[in-house]
Amino acid sequence: MYDHFPISDRAKKMRETLLKFMDDHVYPAEKTYYEQVAEGDRWQPVPIMEELKAKGRESGLWNMFLTHEAGGYKGAGLTQLEYGTMCEIMGRSSIGSEPFNCSAPDTGNMETIFMYGTDDHKAKWLQPLLDGEIRSCFAMTEPAVASSDATNIETRIVREGDEYVINGTKWWSSGAMDPRCKIAILMGKTDPDAETHKQQSMILVPFDTPGVEVIRPLSVIGYDHAPHGHAEVKYTNVRVPVSNILLGEGRGFEIAQGRLGPGRIHHAMRSVGQAERALQMMCERGMARTAFGKRIADMGVTKHWIAESRMEIEQARLLVLHAAYMMDTVGNKVARREIAMIKVVAANLSQRVIDRAMQVHGAQGVSQDTTLAASFANARTMRLVDGPDEVHRETIAKLELKQYRN
Amino acid sequence: MYDHFPISDRAKKMRETLLKFMDDHVYPAEKTYYEQVAEGDRWQPVPIMEELKAKGRESGLWNMFLTHEAGGYKGAGLTQLEYGTMCEIMGRSSIGSEPFNCSAPDTGNMETIFMYGTDDHKAKWLQPLLDGEIRSCFAMTEPAVASSDATNIETRIVREGDEYVINGTKWWSSGAMDPRCKIAILMGKTDPDAETHKQQSMILVPFDTPGVEVIRPLSVIGYDHAPHGHAEVKYTNVRVPVSNILLGEGRGFEIAQGRLGPGRIHHAMRSVGQAERALQMMCERGMARTAFGKRIADMGVTKHWIAESRMEIEQARLLVLHAAYMMDTVGNKVARREIAMIKVVAANLSQRVIDRAMQVHGAQGVSQDTTLAASFANARTMRLVDGPDEVHRETIAKLELKQYRN
Amino acid sequence: MYDHFPISDRAKKMRETLLKFMDDHVYPAEKTYYEQVAEGDRWQPVPIMEELKAKGRESGLWNMFLTHEAGGYKGAGLTQLEYGTMCEIMGRSSIGSEPFNCSAPDTGNMETIFMYGTDDHKAKWLQPLLDGEIRSCFAMTEPAVASSDATNIETRIVREGDEYVINGTKWWSSGAMDPRCKIAILMGKTDPDAETHKQQSMILVPFDTPGVEVIRPLSVIGYDHAPHGHAEVKYTNVRVPVSNILLGEGRGFEIAQGRLGPGRIHHAMRSVGQAERALQMMCERGMARTAFGKRIADMGVTKHWIAESRMEIEQARLLVLHAAYMMDTVGNKVARREIAMIKVVAANLSQRVIDRAMQVHGAQGVSQDTTLAASFANARTMRLVDGPDEVHRETIAKLELKQYRN
Amino acid sequence: MYDHFPISDRAKKMRETLLKFMDDHVYPAEKTYYEQVAEGDRWQPVPIMEELKAKGRESGLWNMFLTHEAGGYKGAGLTQLEYGTMCEIMGRSSIGSEPFNCSAPDTGNMETIFMYGTDDHKAKWLQPLLDGEIRSCFAMTEPAVASSDATNIETRIVREGDEYVINGTKWWSSGAMDPRCKIAILMGKTDPDAETHKQQSMILVPFDTPGVEVIRPLSVIGYDHAPHGHAEVKYTNVRVPVSNILLGEGRGFEIAQGRLGPGRIHHAMRSVGQAERALQMMCERGMARTAFGKRIADMGVTKHWIAESRMEIEQARLLVLHAAYMMDTVGNKVARREIAMIKVVAANLSQRVIDRAMQVHGAQGVSQDTTLAASFANARTMRLVDGPDEVHRETIAKLELKQYRN
Repeated sequence: MYDHFPISDRAKKMRETLLKFMDDHVYPAEKTYYEQVAEGDRWQPVPIMEELKAKGRESGLWNMFLTHEAGGYKGAGLTQLEYGTMCEIMGRSSIGSEPFNCSAPDTGNMETIFMYGTDDHKAKWLQPLLDGEIRSCFAMTEPAVASSDATNIETRIVREGDEYVINGTKWWSSGAMDPRCKIAILMGKTDPDAETHKQQSMILVPFDTPGVEVIRPLSVIGYDHAPHGHAEVKYTNVRVPVSNILLGEGRGFEIAQGRLGPGRIHHAMRSVGQAERALQMMCERGMARTAFGKRIADMGVTKHWIAESRMEIEQARLLVLHAAYMMDTVGNKVARREIAMIKVVAANLSQRVIDRAMQVHGAQGVSQDTTLAASFANARTMRLVDGPDEVHRETIAKLELKQYRN
Repeated sequence: MYDHFPISDRAKKMRETLLKFMDDHVYPAEKTYYEQVAEGDRWQPVPIMEELKAKGRESGLWNMFLTHEAGGYKGAGLTQLEYGTMCEIMGRSSIGSEPFNCSAPDTGNMETIFMYGTDDHKAKWLQPLLDGEIRSCFAMTEPAVASSDATNIETRIVREGDEYVINGTKWWSSGAMDPRCKIAILMGKTDPDAETHKQQSMILVPFDTPGVEVIRPLSVIGYDHAPHGHAEVKYTNVRVPVSNILLGEGRGFEIAQGRLGPGRIHHAMRSVGQAERALQMMCERGMARTAFGKRIADMGVTKHWIAESRMEIEQARLLVLHAAYMMDTVGNKVARREIAMIKVVAANLSQRVIDRAMQVHGAQGVSQDTTLAASFANARTMRLVDGPDEVHRETIAKLELKQYRN
Repeated sequence: MYDHFPISDRAKKMRETLLKFMDDHVYPAEKTYYEQVAEGDRWQPVPIMEELKAKGRESGLWNMFLTHEAGGYKGAGLTQLEYGTMCEIMGRSSIGSEPFNCSAPDTGNMETIFMYGTDDHKAKWLQPLLDGEIRSCFAMTEPAVASSDATNIETRIVREGDEYVINGTKWWSSGAMDPRCKIAILMGKTDPDAETHKQQSMILVPFDTPGVEVIRPLSVIGYDHAPHGHAEVKYTNVRVPVSNILLGEGRGFEIAQGRLGPGRIHHAMRSVGQAERALQMMCERGMARTAFGKRIADMGVTKHWIAESRMEIEQARLLVLHAAYMMDTVGNKVARREIAMIKVVAANLSQRVIDRAMQVHGAQGVSQDTTLAASFANARTMRLVDGPDEVHRETIAKLELKQYRN
Repeated sequence: MYDHFPISDRAKKMRETLLKFMDDHVYPAEKTYYEQVAEGDRWQPVPIMEELKAKGRESGLWNMFLTHEAGGYKGAGLTQLEYGTMCEIMGRSSIGSEPFNCSAPDTGNMETIFMYGTDDHKAKWLQPLLDGEIRSCFAMTEPAVASSDATNIETRIVREGDEYVINGTKWWSSGAMDPRCKIAILMGKTDPDAETHKQQSMILVPFDTPGVEVIRPLSVIGYDHAPHGHAEVKYTNVRVPVSNILLGEGRGFEIAQGRLGPGRIHHAMRSVGQAERALQMMCERGMARTAFGKRIADMGVTKHWIAESRMEIEQARLLVLHAAYMMDTVGNKVARREIAMIKVVAANLSQRVIDRAMQVHGAQGVSQDTTLAASFANARTMRLVDGPDEVHRETIAKLELKQYRN
């Protein structure tokens, strides 16, 4: 159906493998996963996920996000477009990515170290990340400033001899609550007096460095996403060797740009996947439940919602695949309008579709008995992740108006 | 400003007292309240709430929901309209009602026992409820059926000699997780063969009766609302004396109707209050935060949202006050269209306004650092409480079309 | 139902008279009116309207907009609130206001001359306007500038001896196409160097003065609203006596402010009336028409629309009545937020409701066979009349944020 | 940018030719076209269109809708996808299709005669249609019934000897007001007792046959679309030879199905083109106009609208191209979900975008001075053409739910 998009037979085959894996292993594990998280210490690895990861490793889909060969792993060599179609499927379950070592922010962090790290960085951090033995976080957003405007960032990285000394507070460091989180990629200012886009640098901060202090977990609309979590982390006189800097001082923005495009595709396709699953649940529930002598699916408004959802999902999916295709063919920079668009479209789409599915489920829809409530909280949050929608709408409008400026 | 509505000077004065109480005691206690809930056993009374209740008792506003004199308490004698204006103010905080013993579902339950209970029921249950010593729940909704169509209800109440034997499973029994919950008002079928609206009865079930089993707490979009909670409760061969029935067999619907109108006003006005608070937070945040060199409040879309929110709030408030006025003057039955309308309008309004406020707050808006995320979950849930919106839209449409039928 | 609003028995009686008049005379005349306009010269008085006016004169409702005694007419003495309820009813038909000499812009112009004109102005222009013998226009908006920002206005009014010389181009002069249009109230700059709000003046321009040239009729989404019409008018060296100025030089803004509030109420209530009629048509059509074996009214989406429309109409009506009540009790200035809100709410409401009604009517809904298409064009246009929605949303937001500024 | 879709180099070249033709000839002719229509008899051919047609004939794009060779014209051999991209460009102007003999309903009628007509039909009607000498109409919809449910159709086609006798009333026969309209393809019932989808037949009715009476032109939201027009046509004892029937009795539905898919693509892509043009106008106006000291384009809400419009257009275009691609590769029947979706999506999209563009234009936006008002009326009407949105949403929902039925 989508075969105007260039997707290799190999990718199609991997997609089939993935679909089967989801049916055989992931969906049936969801209930147990949440039960295991709820029991005892929430902030520990979840047994059933470790089992899923073991199976994922054998599936041939382990690290499939990886484009190239790295750390002994032969990258899957998928295009953004091809990997995008995988993200949609993994995204249908909130526990669908980790079995393949394809969760955010680890994928982005691995890509970053792969592209910008030294051999030493790779040996020390990329390898165990690729092996799924450790986890990582990305330390960018700060509580005190509107971080969607990255020039606001206040964390300082100051060189003293052979070391950089880091001071600042970051929050929304996703994954940082996990006890296996061993490394942070941190963005901060090395030179506040440089020109705006040269003030920032990115640096690797081993998470056990003295002065790194996890303050607390943040919740997103009632969910803490344990054991992964979103942490507020304070950095007080944290000292790391100068060799930990990525690419060099003042190149933080450059790295951020390179990282950003693929992440958007992944997020957006996962959102499409979430919406697709919500639509499926809406239909199933509509067919199964009767009120006032009628199947809910046969009520006019339900059908209206199903049709709207289908139309919105198809459009969003085409938009994201198209953006991925453009990234593959003309690159991030030319595709920046498309990348901004999918950010806004996909998150809003999935909130709308899930909202309708909840309504069809009645009170059950907001409870812990389905995945809808957690998906809803997640979709709502995605409208803020990587900058609120409004920042991206602004970008789109500016690119549009540019054509008319004299 | 709203003085075309007949609000007595006494009610206006009480309103002033309430506003001051909120500022002096309630808002400052919010943070502590949630911290105390988070510490230790979530399902125990919260110390600061007990302090607030002590103050509430002295405020002259204790039990102000009560229309008449009962259990030694002189009812405040407020009209629905007047009490509605109080609900808006209490509703601005999720902990704003309990200090005055005005929380749902206790108010509805007290009203029900007051109106339909015997002297014995009143002495045993109404008195300690009025004193704020025990709590109660309302056992109506069932997991297995679409309970918005109350004829679906499957719980059985079967007479055996001097006792009724109750079997069934209820969920969304709000307040039933609280250890102080001592009494349930339960709806079930006494005669499945009677005509549709005569099959149901309401009965008082002491919560410590053998066979009453709290299965688990339900969460609403990630929130468990401890220590109040929403419980799934199983009733297995629960035996209560026949005298526990309210009004008599087959009169459950009648009681449900009487109870329903005021509850809608209270819910709707609390929703308006929530929306009003969210708008306030949106403005404060917009004035305080800067991005891309501009106050967020000065960005065009923020102003658009503020204006939309103000217009929607004003309209919704007028609609609810008007409905309350109609209840006071022409009664629930004539006002049933108005009561259906406020159910739909208020919940949707508050979800929209809070959604915008969250967006203006950025990532903080979904975290535990403001009240917005919890309010958002609550507003979303209100679109399902007392039947999904769609059921009420159907009622409104039917009443409209009735005028055209021949 | 709305009796919390202070409406006198006399006003209620007039309302009954008006309702009967609409049923007996106005609705039955609609078809003929449009046929007569379509025949021959569109820009001539319409015979059936002259008959309606004769009946309107006898109805006791002639000039009921008039608050005070003027030109031999005893004003009806209605409050804004009371007259507002009349506007809703007249607004249900596009030919409902003129039979009572209550059409815009004549009512506003008569009020303006009444309040700010000299005895001579009144004798010459107010009297024949009150008698319904001549028509008038309001010359404010200009094609070359964004006139919602009135400081942009470019038309010049320059004193030369005992005369003012006027040069400029105005458009959207409603009513100016009618051959009976004899007088314009024109806004222009007398002193471009004065402080912003003192640059403008209003002046009476007899429409047969040399140099006044009607360039062309403008259409609103395909409708020319003949014979009334919306004209582009060029003023070239138009000379009028200095005595024609209203209040004095530099007082144009002051007059505009005074005029604006009541006009908003009238427009908004007419919009509510239009919406109410569209809802009625939606229901009637839904009950009468069958497709796919079902009455359209019984389809879920139709019922959803009917319910939404009813909820929106009730809210908008309450908001407008409330604004009128505030104008009556605390005045335009205090009520300026309310006046801005109804401008936005009412026009958008009526566009939405009419849009749904059109959809229920199928292709007939866009044709000339019902009043819906013309109402739709009108409602859409109302979102631009007196400044686009956005200007008023900006005002509302500013008033809201003002409370938070330090 | 869209080069994942298989579009031939030849089609790309034709697209370039078309773009240039639009710039050189079509856009500059719009003003004159409407002036010429407004002068004198509206229902006569428009001189400048005849000039455009002469140029269109020479452009190599004449009849480019035609897939095959017919009537001496070598079909352009474009796929639906390729021709779809042309429709978008032609659709940017309301006079963009006719210069290439590519207007509805003539293209659909020509296709129908080409596919289902005899050699004699082709010689007599197809040839002059291909030559652009005559026009045609499609007589399907009836005033008395909900024609979106085609089984409702009441027009009778009764065989009497060698003739069929036709009686009934059709409306919305687009193009039938044009004096050059010489042939109607009419749908009616030959056998009301046959099974539902075998009752209908299609027959060719020369428009000068006695008994064919054009009753009146219909208008769409104030526009009569002269000289093309939408007619109500009465057929009284209209007699045509039996050979005029297409395919045979009872095959009307079959023909309607075959015709429908391509027409949807054309309509939808023209809607996308309209939206694209409205966005362009929104940007141009936003850059050119200043209010309250700011360019309108720099106001936050304008940018929000521009971004929304761009996102919606991109999604809709991808959806329509994808549907066209499916029609080309798997056929109408498999693609029926896609065909239903684009019907709903495209019309709603263009109404929304044009609505925003009008708002940015202020009062000028509703006047005759831009193409926006006419486009708006057209877009609103497209939500009803070929059946109201709701019918198609119903289809989409049914196809979705089908997967869940047991």
